[in-house]
Amino acid sequence: MGKSNLDLVHECDRFPYHQDDPAAYTTHMEKYHSFRVKGCDSILGYIVNEVVDRFDWPTESWAIDQSNRTVTLIAGSSPAERNQAVAQTLDKAVKQDRFEVLRGWRDELYPVFGPDGEFILEMERCASPLFGIVSYGIHATAYIEDENGLRLWIPRRSKTKQTYPGMLDNSVAGGMSTGETPFECLVREAMEEASLPEDVVRANAVAAGCVSYTYVRDQRAGGETDLVQPEVEYVYDIKLSADIVPKPNDSEVQEFCLLTVEDTKKALASGEFKPNCSVVLIDFFIRHGILTPENEKDFLEIITKLHRRLEFPTASHVIN
Amino acid sequence: MGKSNLDLVHECDRFPYHQDDPAAYTTHMEKYHSFRVKGCDSILGYIVNEVVDRFDWPTESWAIDQSNRTVTLIAGSSPAERNQAVAQTLDKAVKQDRFEVLRGWRDELYPVFGPDGEFILEMERCASPLFGIVSYGIHATAYIEDENGLRLWIPRRSKTKQTYPGMLDNSVAGGMSTGETPFECLVREAMEEASLPEDVVRANAVAAGCVSYTYVRDQRAGGETDLVQPEVEYVYDIKLSADIVPKPNDSEVQEFCLLTVEDTKKALASGEFKPNCSVVLIDFFIRHGILTPENEKDFLEIITKLHRRLEFPTASHVIN
Repeated sequence: MGKSNLDLVHECDRFPYHQDDPAAYTTHMEKYHSFRVKGCDSILGYIVNEVVDRFDWPTESWAIDQSNRTVTLIAGSSPAERNQAVAQTLDKAVKQDRFEVLRGWRDELYPVFGPDGEFILEMERCASPLFGIVSYGIHATAYIEDENGLRLWIPRRSKTKQTYPGMLDNSVAGGMSTGETPFECLVREAMEEASLPEDVVRANAVAAGCVSYTYVRDQRAGGETDLVQPEVEYVYDIKLSADIVPKPNDSEVQEFCLLTVEDTKKALASGEFKPNCSVVLIDFFIRHGILTPENEKDFLEIITKLHRRLEFPTASHVIN
Repeated sequence: MGKSNLDLVHECDRFPYHQDDPAAYTTHMEKYHSFRVKGCDSILGYIVNEVVDRFDWPTESWAIDQSNRTVTLIAGSSPAERNQAVAQTLDKAVKQDRFEVLRGWRDELYPVFGPDGEFILEMERCASPLFGIVSYGIHATAYIEDENGLRLWIPRRSKTKQTYPGMLDNSVAGGMSTGETPFECLVREAMEEASLPEDVVRANAVAAGCVSYTYVRDQRAGGETDLVQPEVEYVYDIKLSADIVPKPNDSEVQEFCLLTVEDTKKALASGEFKPNCSVVLIDFFIRHGILTPENEKDFLEIITKLHRRLEFPTASHVIN
């Protein structure tokens, strides 16, 4: 008896819902401080209390309110000034080796947006779970469809990868840094991870919405556990002809396999996929009529949880 | 300056969210009684206080708790017994002509489900907004895709239809009665509303998920306003060849037109579509790469609101 699709969704969307049990939710929220920025009305992330205690917050940049459980960035009135204050705080924490997650420094900056989609600040990618901010990425499913039915291009992560080594992944997946749009991120990652030529991706990739959920980190993610990680993954379908074969292009991917729908379902049920890749495939199966109201008993709960309305402001990527 | 896609979503998903303003939400909830059934832990619907006051509740079947604002069906311990008690209450209200919405009696029964998907009771369709229970339906988008691009089969509702006369609609749409599965409902409605042969629908219709939202009735719906109407619409895409042309089969539809994507967008922006048909088209446009993160500024808010996690237990339609 393997994992159900709803089990897989629950491994990804792990944060409680107020509507399920208001009293339990209120109690749960006592574990966190709200991350705020001076001049912005919205809460921008949830910081686990232990993280608040362990940080050495410079008082000229941060105001910590223990009774209201808020951590407010008071330094700066522009993104550039805020970025500097955040970077200094993180730099100090790295030197003090305060957090395991900061050992995985990526030199990639993740943006934070305000309630009107305005850019508020950016911070090093690996620090984002410490602040519980929303992160953005793209996940694409490459597939072929012919007289043998639909088959999916599934990569296996390298055994030496820092996170989720050896697990199965989506055909293309990657995080979006500040200033990147989803489609351009897809084009870049498709070459970096799957050797898919730019013209093939531009001609064949179709935007198909997003999945959103609130992950809570466990030991498989590496580093501190219980950190809150709200995520938006823009999803794309890439239908390929049989002559185009994705290939590893760096050391992060071990190999690509062409799996039938049945084999993919089996790999999902046996927990072989990285958690947030499972849910992208489940969303793909729902959009393509593979999972239906008549064959998936948790159809509605899966769909609504995979499109969670996050508690924080989110990005707009419209090109003006 | 027409309506934005988010405006159209807001016309459909009109019930407030706790997360947006917990205090305002709590105040708002004072307008409702919770609909409960003896022996079931979940709230099954929201009844507007004015409706509670106007009903003549037989005390042998109903317990009204004004301080906790609950209306509990205490009669019966099986669906059949509960159905009888509800039917008697509604029958009396019809004879007393207590509610405008009950003048639109349909002789269709809508089911109510408990937290484990178990069937609790059923009630006349036109009474469902009085109890604020979840209703289920199917909406399908028939389209052709050729060298001229994608075009959609859009019907106009009859000018004499009881609700939303003369407005544009989805290619096929209908409510699901007790015992019906989504796909069989689609097959039935496709013939009744669009004269689409059963074999064509079975061969070409693809399940593509659902939209869910909490509508609040306004004057365009007819009858009492402010009634709560949580809805799940299972969505289907039906790609047709050019030789298959949907045709009205009853007096409910006036005509079918084949609209380009641009013309459909214009009709959406000018408010020509019935509200819950707008959102099915918006979902279709998102799944087909027509609305993207780069051209729709409210992309994330639209997607999450169109897949609202309802406050009540929902159905499971798995065929065992």
